[in-house]
Amino acid sequence: MNVSPDWIAVDWGSSNLRAFAMRGGEPVAEAASGEGASGLAREDFEPALLRAIGPWLSEGRVTPVLACGMVGARHGWIEAPYRVVPCAPAAPGETILAPTQDPRLSLRILPGLSQASPADVMRGEETQIAGFLAGDPGFAGALILPGTHSKQARIAGGRVLSFSTWMTGELFALLSQSSVLRHSLQGVGGEDPAAFAAGVRIGAGGGALRGLFALRAEGLLEGLPAQAARSRLSGMLIGAELTGFDPGGDCVVIGAGGLARAYLAALDLLGIPARACDGAELARRGLALIHEGRGL
Amino acid sequence: MNVSPDWIAVDWGSSNLRAFAMRGGEPVAEAASGEGASGLAREDFEPALLRAIGPWLSEGRVTPVLACGMVGARHGWIEAPYRVVPCAPAAPGETILAPTQDPRLSLRILPGLSQASPADVMRGEETQIAGFLAGDPGFAGALILPGTHSKQARIAGGRVLSFSTWMTGELFALLSQSSVLRHSLQGVGGEDPAAFAAGVRIGAGGGALRGLFALRAEGLLEGLPAQAARSRLSGMLIGAELTGFDPGGDCVVIGAGGLARAYLAALDLLGIPARACDGAELARRGLALIHEGRGL
Repeated sequence: MNVSPDWIAVDWGSSNLRAFAMRGGEPVAEAASGEGASGLAREDFEPALLRAIGPWLSEGRVTPVLACGMVGARHGWIEAPYRVVPCAPAAPGETILAPTQDPRLSLRILPGLSQASPADVMRGEETQIAGFLAGDPGFAGALILPGTHSKQARIAGGRVLSFSTWMTGELFALLSQSSVLRHSLQGVGGEDPAAFAAGVRIGAGGGALRGLFALRAEGLLEGLPAQAARSRLSGMLIGAELTGFDPGGDCVVIGAGGLARAYLAALDLLGIPARACDGAELARRGLALIHEGRGL
Repeated sequence: MNVSPDWIAVDWGSSNLRAFAMRGGEPVAEAASGEGASGLAREDFEPALLRAIGPWLSEGRVTPVLACGMVGARHGWIEAPYRVVPCAPAAPGETILAPTQDPRLSLRILPGLSQASPADVMRGEETQIAGFLAGDPGFAGALILPGTHSKQARIAGGRVLSFSTWMTGELFALLSQSSVLRHSLQGVGGEDPAAFAAGVRIGAGGGALRGLFALRAEGLLEGLPAQAARSRLSGMLIGAELTGFDPGGDCVVIGAGGLARAYLAALDLLGIPARACDGAELARRGLALIHEGRGL
């Protein structure tokens, strides 16, 4: 199939790469790969990209590619310096030209955002935020982007005012797979809403670290089911992330599926009105904005 | 060498085994092995013990062996049921006879302690506590036993009133070796007391989980040295463990070396007077007490 895109949008995070063959602002084809930025040496980036988007390139023609995410990190393809908040989530004039070998490619990478105090960084989420604000330019409040490293961002006037990163997802993975708690957390079963709610209350009350080993002890002494233990751990870590959280306006959880539902449930338990917005297409929309030179 | 002990004391934790050939209450030889209880299937325990203490056994004679620690866990040699606090740390009449094949062995295992609410368990530390109280029977206050799973125990009248387990050591290991923070924490260098103190204040103020990712961000943005990042992480986790800590009397940290010094420094920063007591011989002393049928 000859796709012949005008340009190509690439959302390249630590673990995955998603690419979109674009005509104007609309995707005409999509490709995905598990060759995330964290697993690649510098010289491996271009071959990995070509494996994903090679079929869309044409001899004798340069196709512009615009990428966001960890591909621009210090150990990525080339470091794209951070832009410092408060600022718009994306600025068309500040992309970085990456060195390439293949004459069919011209690759530019978006900078991430940094914050001086408390020190913090993001790469990729700023493009999702740009995509979100394209659809809701007057948004004022907080966006939560759950994941391995959950981000909370305060937004007003089309700008990211401040943000914070929480290791919620990575802590859950480490504790449930690699710590002594794995003995009490592994097993079949879905979610336990009551255990999750109990966990949210423990975590939001500052008791997450104190409450960890009880998951093991209750498993040994009382036969706490793995499903309840997992749900309570999830609730404790999300509750800890939301301790003292005040969106200062509207609150939107960027995401879909179980993780977004868990954050919405936790926010509801804490009396904070919130809604979810599926984030799957937001990075592509953000990249399209930058490609059009619009920014925000 | 013919050691010919009256009996053998064994401190058998998750990761290590230490054995002492005893005459009365005094050791005449010592053996150690890395065959901890967590790496052994049930049928492997007796061969592992014989590898350590075999040279001390004599044909035609049964040598009594008394063991404490994870060897008595559900997945250990045989489960030694928990005794429920408040209670004395060790009770001579409540050891469990373990099944053995070798006619030269008679093995008894000490029970651990459990607490109903908040649910908690310990195995091995109760014997150290018994050893400590043998030297200070009137102790009233709190003992802290730092480690992979740090224990805090309230003591009065020769009894363990209550205790709590903290995953401080395991969290430090997981975060510094297996999380994204490893990039910012690995490197040469010793301790950074100022960074440790800053971490204690963050952790004791409830900010440990919030402060984790800043270690990465400050590494990227400000070149935070690995030594400072490691010391701050250690301080944050120990500070979190000590949030609201009140010994209700004297406070003793059971241990020696850097970890005991770190806890003493954190307690000092929080205005809590404390001293350290080298714990290396306490389990053996506790086992000797039980062997003599004295308990506490």
